[in-house]
Amino acid sequence: MPNTLFRLQTTRSWDFLGLSPSHSPTSLLYKSRMGDGVIVGMLDSGIWPESKAFNDAGLGPIPSRWKGGCEPAEQFDPAKHCNRKIIGARWFVDGFLAEYGRPLNASGDLEFLSPRDANGHGTHTSSTAVGSFVSNVSYRGIGYGTARGGAPRARLAIYKVCWNVLGGQCSSADILKAFDEAIHDGVDVLSLSIGTAIPLFSDVDDRDGIATGAFHAVARGITVVCGAANDGPAAQTVQNTAPWILTVGASTMDRAFHTLITLGNNETLAGEAIYTGKEIGFTSLLYPEGTTLDPTLAGVCERLSPNATLMAGKVVLCFTYTSRRLAVTIAAEAVKASRGVGVIVAKNPSDGLAPCSDDFPCVEVDYEIGTRILLYFRSARFPVVKLSRTITAVGKAVQAKVAFFSSRGPSSISPAVLKPDVAAPGVNILAATCPFDPLEDNGYAMHSGTSMSTPHVAGIVALLKALHPGWSPAALRSALVTTAWRNNPSGFPIFASANPLKLADPFDMGGGIANPNSAAEPGLVYDAGMPDYIVYLCAMGYNDSEISHLTKKPTHCPTRRPSVTDVNLPSITIPSLRSSITVTRTVTNTGPPESIYWAEIKPPSGTIVTVKPHVLAFNRKTKKMAFGVTVRAVALVNTGYYFGSLVWTDGLHAVRSPLAVRIVNQAPFYSAE
Amino acid sequence: MPNTLFRLQTTRSWDFLGLSPSHSPTSLLYKSRMGDGVIVGMLDSGIWPESKAFNDAGLGPIPSRWKGGCEPAEQFDPAKHCNRKIIGARWFVDGFLAEYGRPLNASGDLEFLSPRDANGHGTHTSSTAVGSFVSNVSYRGIGYGTARGGAPRARLAIYKVCWNVLGGQCSSADILKAFDEAIHDGVDVLSLSIGTAIPLFSDVDDRDGIATGAFHAVARGITVVCGAANDGPAAQTVQNTAPWILTVGASTMDRAFHTLITLGNNETLAGEAIYTGKEIGFTSLLYPEGTTLDPTLAGVCERLSPNATLMAGKVVLCFTYTSRRLAVTIAAEAVKASRGVGVIVAKNPSDGLAPCSDDFPCVEVDYEIGTRILLYFRSARFPVVKLSRTITAVGKAVQAKVAFFSSRGPSSISPAVLKPDVAAPGVNILAATCPFDPLEDNGYAMHSGTSMSTPHVAGIVALLKALHPGWSPAALRSALVTTAWRNNPSGFPIFASANPLKLADPFDMGGGIANPNSAAEPGLVYDAGMPDYIVYLCAMGYNDSEISHLTKKPTHCPTRRPSVTDVNLPSITIPSLRSSITVTRTVTNTGPPESIYWAEIKPPSGTIVTVKPHVLAFNRKTKKMAFGVTVRAVALVNTGYYFGSLVWTDGLHAVRSPLAVRIVNQAPFYSAE
Repeated sequence: MPNTLFRLQTTRSWDFLGLSPSHSPTSLLYKSRMGDGVIVGMLDSGIWPESKAFNDAGLGPIPSRWKGGCEPAEQFDPAKHCNRKIIGARWFVDGFLAEYGRPLNASGDLEFLSPRDANGHGTHTSSTAVGSFVSNVSYRGIGYGTARGGAPRARLAIYKVCWNVLGGQCSSADILKAFDEAIHDGVDVLSLSIGTAIPLFSDVDDRDGIATGAFHAVARGITVVCGAANDGPAAQTVQNTAPWILTVGASTMDRAFHTLITLGNNETLAGEAIYTGKEIGFTSLLYPEGTTLDPTLAGVCERLSPNATLMAGKVVLCFTYTSRRLAVTIAAEAVKASRGVGVIVAKNPSDGLAPCSDDFPCVEVDYEIGTRILLYFRSARFPVVKLSRTITAVGKAVQAKVAFFSSRGPSSISPAVLKPDVAAPGVNILAATCPFDPLEDNGYAMHSGTSMSTPHVAGIVALLKALHPGWSPAALRSALVTTAWRNNPSGFPIFASANPLKLADPFDMGGGIANPNSAAEPGLVYDAGMPDYIVYLCAMGYNDSEISHLTKKPTHCPTRRPSVTDVNLPSITIPSLRSSITVTRTVTNTGPPESIYWAEIKPPSGTIVTVKPHVLAFNRKTKKMAFGVTVRAVALVNTGYYFGSLVWTDGLHAVRSPLAVRIVNQAPFYSAE
Repeated sequence: MPNTLFRLQTTRSWDFLGLSPSHSPTSLLYKSRMGDGVIVGMLDSGIWPESKAFNDAGLGPIPSRWKGGCEPAEQFDPAKHCNRKIIGARWFVDGFLAEYGRPLNASGDLEFLSPRDANGHGTHTSSTAVGSFVSNVSYRGIGYGTARGGAPRARLAIYKVCWNVLGGQCSSADILKAFDEAIHDGVDVLSLSIGTAIPLFSDVDDRDGIATGAFHAVARGITVVCGAANDGPAAQTVQNTAPWILTVGASTMDRAFHTLITLGNNETLAGEAIYTGKEIGFTSLLYPEGTTLDPTLAGVCERLSPNATLMAGKVVLCFTYTSRRLAVTIAAEAVKASRGVGVIVAKNPSDGLAPCSDDFPCVEVDYEIGTRILLYFRSARFPVVKLSRTITAVGKAVQAKVAFFSSRGPSSISPAVLKPDVAAPGVNILAATCPFDPLEDNGYAMHSGTSMSTPHVAGIVALLKALHPGWSPAALRSALVTTAWRNNPSGFPIFASANPLKLADPFDMGGGIANPNSAAEPGLVYDAGMPDYIVYLCAMGYNDSEISHLTKKPTHCPTRRPSVTDVNLPSITIPSLRSSITVTRTVTNTGPPESIYWAEIKPPSGTIVTVKPHVLAFNRKTKKMAFGVTVRAVALVNTGYYFGSLVWTDGLHAVRSPLAVRIVNQAPFYSAE
């Protein structure tokens, strides 16, 4: 098969998303003037301002509306560390210190009482969202090219709320204060790669500073983008589930890092690794065989004990029954300590690679490839293997998938609100970092997580906001959800890494993988605002007092309790369909004033879905139209969630709403015991 | 909603499968005369012959063709312990002892040097396969009814190869010897609920005694049924993958065991439990709150430390991030030690329940229900909860799913052979056991695993064999695969428990959940025999010497290496489609001699599938017909496995072959680094 050289962009994710500078001038990147004029606030671990990613070349004066700014602090001098890119930088630590119980540097913690980033996370996410163009970037010799963020001409405001102790801690009190100041400063978009863990706090519980702070930001027209969290692939693990938040899951992209494994019989297999050392020429291969009583025990990665007699000078193959990266690092350490020269770990595939320490070759393969290597080992008289340096595979050979770790819906607290909203690249993302990041190389590092996918969407939202300054957070979210990719660029259904691999559904990726160029012209949007969110809160059963505490003004729920399905979301999820329900939705025309849309329905299994009216005719006077969606169960049965879709189309635009329905109309039949 | 009393059969699985005595007289159970005349051999941990499940009431004389028998041994007297049901009982221990290195009872292991079962596993599987009718059975007061096996009139031959030490050990040498004797004795069906772990041995490797022994049994017309293993839900974990084996995954059925959780606000939620103690009346509910720095730590089940001050007299709610049952037992022990009265564990749902020790109430809920309980706890002034005894839910309210733990395809060693073949009930299966089984109650116990689903299929095969004595193992397997349920009895797609929940595909359940009544009249079968299996071995690249060692006669592979896709399986799996492939299949008409079938194709995404000829006309002279299936890739792309189907139908029968295709026609594009 023909081999082709491909001009690799370091931050390939933007190419994958269709926002490369080499793409058409009609791309969102250009139409939005690269986000010029938009201000993105990051609530994270701060910034390493010296990074070239935050150079302000070509940027005009700071927008006059901006009320934020920078103040001197520890290792932070506004004159040097703020510029026309970094236009605001604040830090918030009182809430954290109140819990931590002692001064920050008491135990020699590496931190700065200032916006300066001691961790790297905040620098990485900031550069992903809005980093300026930086040429000649590479990471340990791979991925050479130009690095940049989603909205390279957008401005950056730093709100450091996360502190580099105990693995990274962000207090809700600090988060709330940061929201407060960001709102006051005048940001347009806020990006939070922050979460806790399930079980979730209720939407009115102040302990969820993100939901509460986001409520107020969204009330002021600020779009708040948050990560879905990394507790996947189990269901119901998604976080930051409030309907006013834009919740982002993680996907891979069309790039993979392969190490070629060549067996002594010349068979070549591809493993995954970030290995930038020298090629390992043909060397002895070893699989530590077990006994009859424990046929596989010896070859289990987590149980490899250092044994130079057995492993010195060899490449060791082991199997692990987990998906965790930890098995790889344990095996690499054991083999390295035994003076082995490399390890091949057959594991359940997950996503996210990192170099092993001391750049020890550690290669991941799945069980099919691992078994082929093992069968070769068992059948060859002198089994040998060769390992290449990592090479980068891009394009049609690599299909993007929902990332293994990406937290999944349905929401454990409000299943009628589909979460996540969309997915975006969050695996092996190369972006700027601080020098204290253990994975740092040349000022850049490769990280994985919904932490990385969130600023991708924040950058896209900044571009959309530049193009459509009047759009609400809900409209921007709607545009992303209804235009997201359901199929890969090659046109085939997207998979979700999981146990086991599966086709991706709305609980894996919401509307799909974010599609910025289509989101720029969605055709119709499902707009929503405070009234919808108050309907949501009332439907959730919170009382007037709790809701008023959140809204900061007297709020009364209607006597007749609404339903969460009444919220004007760009999706319809019905967690407990009895016989029939009609939900109302309102769409706003954002395309040509004279437009006619008709409905195309794919009903979830077990349902009949009708839309009325099923044709919407917009004109200069009629910009908004409402319709009813009736979902009827066709059987007496309890089911799981089946999926379908409602697409409004005018022949040019496709406005796609995921449908998710679970039928629950059968009491369990109990026998008399 | 109306509540209905339902007459519960203890071994509901046979009702679920459509083989209840109260079902139509045209059911397979009656047509096959309940398996009369068929002999089923069990390779397992032996038998507890006193169990009523092995009474021989109504059975005629032992078939004269039978060459097996019983011999006196430790605690085993053929005069008392064999009968017209248990017609053979042998034990094989030399292989195990050679590895174990010491006499069996040296360390006080509980075992018998005889066919007597010291574990319960062998008794449980034997009674599931062929147990006689036993009335008035219940398990701790639930599931009251009649117990029986799949083929209640079939005969039973015991081959004890598994020994009750180190968690259960079955040596391959003992397994091979048992196969040898079972073949000689004259069994019709063999059932092995035995496996090891990935990585798998090659098909010609004697260390896989099951594959080797099964090869010889199948060569003699004996159908060998094996479990897929319990290492799911990760992909590529299926075991016993040889194409001559009938490999069985596990499903749940339409029965669930619920404990009702009633909150102080009268909201009632259903948790899952086997709790047969007294109802726990309204009592204080506790969720141990964490701190801001560790918001969920205190409430993590695995970290509950005994604390009577906190937990005495209360029902404790905790969350675990795992799926494992272990979290439940840990939490129960901690709460019990704290003098708490019950525990509710919010976990990622898995399948398989057991009572907690001392019948302590331990209830499982998912994260949605757990979060609702938690929000109630946080919002109520005096949160209380009530827990009911377990009640049994059956029928339309409970949808059968592929079990969480059921090992999944594709095969790690031969992905072109679809595995598992089918699924069958293997969760919370009530069957006979020995007194040493810790879960034993009244001679019965509830167990879960593909160990339980395997004898279900062995029993069904015994019924099919009684109805169609001339059918080969491949034909019997084909009938099960092509008629399996793809949808639930309610008519909607079957889910697979997994991380996260997903729609079941052929790697989860093969053709689907076994459908015995349809398998009785499949219409067409994909027959195969030794020539096919030798084609398989040659296609796998084993050399003539290795293959001859397995076949025990000189065997030569053709000069032009065949493909695994040439094997006449009732499914088509193409792991690496380049541009186009044509596979040949041959079907044998088992229905009315004059039959016309036409092909209905659902192509996997990315492919065009054509069948030639696409109409098959059978008559008295033409009983077998061959056809070619051409699968063409429509794009240059690498994909994962997409699924489709090829169904031959005559308007009455539907002969459904799963199609699984992975396109691999793109070399990764490597950039010059």
